[in-house]
Amino acid sequence: MHRDRFYTLSASCPDQVGIIARVSGFIAEHGGWILESSFHADDLTGRYFMRIEIKADSLPFLLAEFRERFRRDVAEPLAMDWRINDSAVKKRVVVLVSKQEHCLYDLLARWQSKELDIEIPCVISNHDTFKGFVEWHGIPFIHVPVNADNKAAAYAEIQRIFDDVSGDTMVLARYMQILSPELCDALSGKIINIHHSFLPSFVGARPYHQAYQRGVKLIGATCHYVTSELDAGPIIEQDVIRIDHSDSPEDMVRYGKDIEKTVLARGLRYHLEDRVLVHGNKTVVFR
Amino acid sequence: MHRDRFYTLSASCPDQVGIIARVSGFIAEHGGWILESSFHADDLTGRYFMRIEIKADSLPFLLAEFRERFRRDVAEPLAMDWRINDSAVKKRVVVLVSKQEHCLYDLLARWQSKELDIEIPCVISNHDTFKGFVEWHGIPFIHVPVNADNKAAAYAEIQRIFDDVSGDTMVLARYMQILSPELCDALSGKIINIHHSFLPSFVGARPYHQAYQRGVKLIGATCHYVTSELDAGPIIEQDVIRIDHSDSPEDMVRYGKDIEKTVLARGLRYHLEDRVLVHGNKTVVFR
Amino acid sequence: MHRDRFYTLSASCPDQVGIIARVSGFIAEHGGWILESSFHADDLTGRYFMRIEIKADSLPFLLAEFRERFRRDVAEPLAMDWRINDSAVKKRVVVLVSKQEHCLYDLLARWQSKELDIEIPCVISNHDTFKGFVEWHGIPFIHVPVNADNKAAAYAEIQRIFDDVSGDTMVLARYMQILSPELCDALSGKIINIHHSFLPSFVGARPYHQAYQRGVKLIGATCHYVTSELDAGPIIEQDVIRIDHSDSPEDMVRYGKDIEKTVLARGLRYHLEDRVLVHGNKTVVFR
Amino acid sequence: MHRDRFYTLSASCPDQVGIIARVSGFIAEHGGWILESSFHADDLTGRYFMRIEIKADSLPFLLAEFRERFRRDVAEPLAMDWRINDSAVKKRVVVLVSKQEHCLYDLLARWQSKELDIEIPCVISNHDTFKGFVEWHGIPFIHVPVNADNKAAAYAEIQRIFDDVSGDTMVLARYMQILSPELCDALSGKIINIHHSFLPSFVGARPYHQAYQRGVKLIGATCHYVTSELDAGPIIEQDVIRIDHSDSPEDMVRYGKDIEKTVLARGLRYHLEDRVLVHGNKTVVFR
Repeated sequence: MHRDRFYTLSASCPDQVGIIARVSGFIAEHGGWILESSFHADDLTGRYFMRIEIKADSLPFLLAEFRERFRRDVAEPLAMDWRINDSAVKKRVVVLVSKQEHCLYDLLARWQSKELDIEIPCVISNHDTFKGFVEWHGIPFIHVPVNADNKAAAYAEIQRIFDDVSGDTMVLARYMQILSPELCDALSGKIINIHHSFLPSFVGARPYHQAYQRGVKLIGATCHYVTSELDAGPIIEQDVIRIDHSDSPEDMVRYGKDIEKTVLARGLRYHLEDRVLVHGNKTVVFR
Repeated sequence: MHRDRFYTLSASCPDQVGIIARVSGFIAEHGGWILESSFHADDLTGRYFMRIEIKADSLPFLLAEFRERFRRDVAEPLAMDWRINDSAVKKRVVVLVSKQEHCLYDLLARWQSKELDIEIPCVISNHDTFKGFVEWHGIPFIHVPVNADNKAAAYAEIQRIFDDVSGDTMVLARYMQILSPELCDALSGKIINIHHSFLPSFVGARPYHQAYQRGVKLIGATCHYVTSELDAGPIIEQDVIRIDHSDSPEDMVRYGKDIEKTVLARGLRYHLEDRVLVHGNKTVVFR
Repeated sequence: MHRDRFYTLSASCPDQVGIIARVSGFIAEHGGWILESSFHADDLTGRYFMRIEIKADSLPFLLAEFRERFRRDVAEPLAMDWRINDSAVKKRVVVLVSKQEHCLYDLLARWQSKELDIEIPCVISNHDTFKGFVEWHGIPFIHVPVNADNKAAAYAEIQRIFDDVSGDTMVLARYMQILSPELCDALSGKIINIHHSFLPSFVGARPYHQAYQRGVKLIGATCHYVTSELDAGPIIEQDVIRIDHSDSPEDMVRYGKDIEKTVLARGLRYHLEDRVLVHGNKTVVFR
Repeated sequence: MHRDRFYTLSASCPDQVGIIARVSGFIAEHGGWILESSFHADDLTGRYFMRIEIKADSLPFLLAEFRERFRRDVAEPLAMDWRINDSAVKKRVVVLVSKQEHCLYDLLARWQSKELDIEIPCVISNHDTFKGFVEWHGIPFIHVPVNADNKAAAYAEIQRIFDDVSGDTMVLARYMQILSPELCDALSGKIINIHHSFLPSFVGARPYHQAYQRGVKLIGATCHYVTSELDAGPIIEQDVIRIDHSDSPEDMVRYGKDIEKTVLARGLRYHLEDRVLVHGNKTVVFR
């Protein structure tokens, strides 16, 4: 990520001759300074993807006009799905957590050091375990209990809070509840989960115990977008760690935490920096 | 692996107090010099595993007597499954291959340099692609065609050859046929396969294409013992390699080869050095 | 690590026939239940290393008597360097930190969740940046400023605090001062540092900038014991992460943090669980 | 790599506004279909790098005219260092080897399977160990002995052979001689070496023994361009593998081979696909 203010253009469109020329020509015509650019043609589906960072003060107009001109001159003619974000506008990330601290501590350390340059308008939890810790950081903590009887109301409440604080992204930092399909659909492409297995292996509950039973020699974690189908959304990032026969399921849980928090942090960063473009049930990640 | 001749004792038995004392006491009593030793207690099943390398010339008797005394004084009282192998007796490894060269070249380079200090009494293939290459190395090449009509006969022939050349281990070095249950059972614990996915993900055919469809960010390979259930035998070794959205299934096939041959070579070495003890459908691997 | 109380015996001695028999015989004779055991013979120096976990309540005497008998019957005859620790006695770890939060947050999260089952009697820093954060956790925070004029006094003060709180281990969690040779010698084998390069490359200041200049394709971190020679003590653990031409020194600093905290936590755990035996300027690590 | 014939444009130039627009505009103007494109701005030096694959039959002229027009319309105005290669013209790779087989077998397996779609006009060695093996593959083998007295003549002979067979790239596949400065300079940017350490650690002879002495926990290999300064040329690719206290220098040599051949093959592929642009003593690698 660059120091100076910049705009990030992310887009996809049907592939054809001249896309880069058209997009970069439009930018050059207005004196735009390209800091970073990535392109990808998906041969099998004929779709084209791009991500471009442009120095904000190299353009002779403000963001609103940039968007309007880009829409008119480039995006509509090329039938693009697109967005332009401004590095000066911090993303607002709502964190959901249950009783495990590793991902929460990790995210707050990154936020504290401005490594993750985001706003955290609140942390929501189905337990009050981390109320003091979160509030010590000056971040509001909202306890939304979830039980067999109140699920619909609880998820509606979470959605209301997310809207109320103008959330951009919801992070499930080892949140041990399964969100309602309504919530998944309403925030499609905005909810990021960390699953404690190397998907598609070991979907669902107690994946480390499943891994132990199967006798695998590596365990992993997967950061993915949440969809209404459990642990089946587009994968953003994965990693693994080596284990052996001497490791109990409890050891795996412990090793796994180190992978979980790292993979979540990487996946979240890619998402926040508009490096992830969803393509069906897969992702293009411009690292 | 040590330079001097040594015996390798591998054993497992029900756990109880004093196992190490009894085994090491027996060895010390006869002046045996322990070069390397590994022990593992499986807490959940109460079974105990060990592997010990003893300098051959430190013992006052020959291998046959060592085995006999060990059986009487240690193995039977402790109800052990056990074996003692002699580093001076080269294992005899029969290699099965189809049309892909990467594992075959890799194994023969390791054999040629004596990194794998084994005998290869023959290479068997359902194609004659590598006849010249194998024979140039002075290794007999046996073409056993397999088709829809002759499977039973073909596998019986392979088993006959394996017995005839006194094979210890059969390696499926990307052999693209599914062995018969009879052959799997007859050579249980002796057949090693390399599967081109990170099992248990992507069992069966075209795993890289399955991985491409799911959009995973790492692909892998698995070295395992062959059982009659496809790709479900005890796992010996696994590894992965990072891919991204720009990699086609063909790219994955190419990357995967590097993992396949390395994982196969590591798993095979563990097996040949008696580092692998099968425990149900899992393995203890004393690296 | 096991749930039940256990003793951990770590020892090294000149290699000879019968060491395992003697040690395990002694344990078995008293009914001791061995939970985990590791042995290593260093062929080049002829020194033997071991680590054994024994269930505490399987022995018919208390720790003091165990130590006394072991000393008399085993350790002295074998000329051992040895120690026996009790899992019921928590190690006391003094953490030193400067202005970067990643290792501190990481260690406190592990302590909070009891993943690291230790006492932290205090955190010492040359800055007061983390006073509030540390104290919120109920841990005393001691500000010991260090500047060009007071170094000798400052390090004497740190040593006094360490003694005063009965510290077992001192962790430099990105503490950006070079300790005095006196302190290094006084606490030899007790101070653990995390260096932000893959040693022996890039000793000293600004290793990520050195790595950038050289154009390496992986960067790393090294957890090691502190000696009076800068960044040259025995290495406990290392790891690396991939970078490429697009990563600035600042990006490397960011990536590096993820490796630093993980490598420090792993190295510290090995040390606390008595898995590390120093051997000259190297380590035996029984994982 | 794509199936259809394509041209690969690699270039660097001083950074300024509008480079991508100018290059992609030129290509689009002639109907060129861009298959893959990568761009990189080096902020610290103000230099811009790019690599573009263009479908050959999408352009209305032949390669010579494409080069001429590109030179006139784009490369000269932008003060570019540039080259355009044709996927239909196989690169000619001369392999130098001594007595170790792992890299040679590995390269020939990749060549045999067309994974590396190159010509190998000859293999040169200072020993005749692999004469039969190389010739069996139908590749000329040239024995150029090197000793204390004939170095100048030997390297002149190697350079003469390289020129004579119209070599594009020279690969030192564990060639255990230090080339003359004259040869290094004459073939600057064309000679690729695999060094058996994670550079800059352990330059020079017996790096695994150096690594053993220092007690590192990972060992590595480095693929780099050869310059007249030993082991100091621009790094193309690196990787590492984990070892521990039980590994002797001989074990490290064995593990290292697996890393060496993989890293060499990856680095060579990047080079052959024009993915590597040298920038001072560093490389931009567009993977």
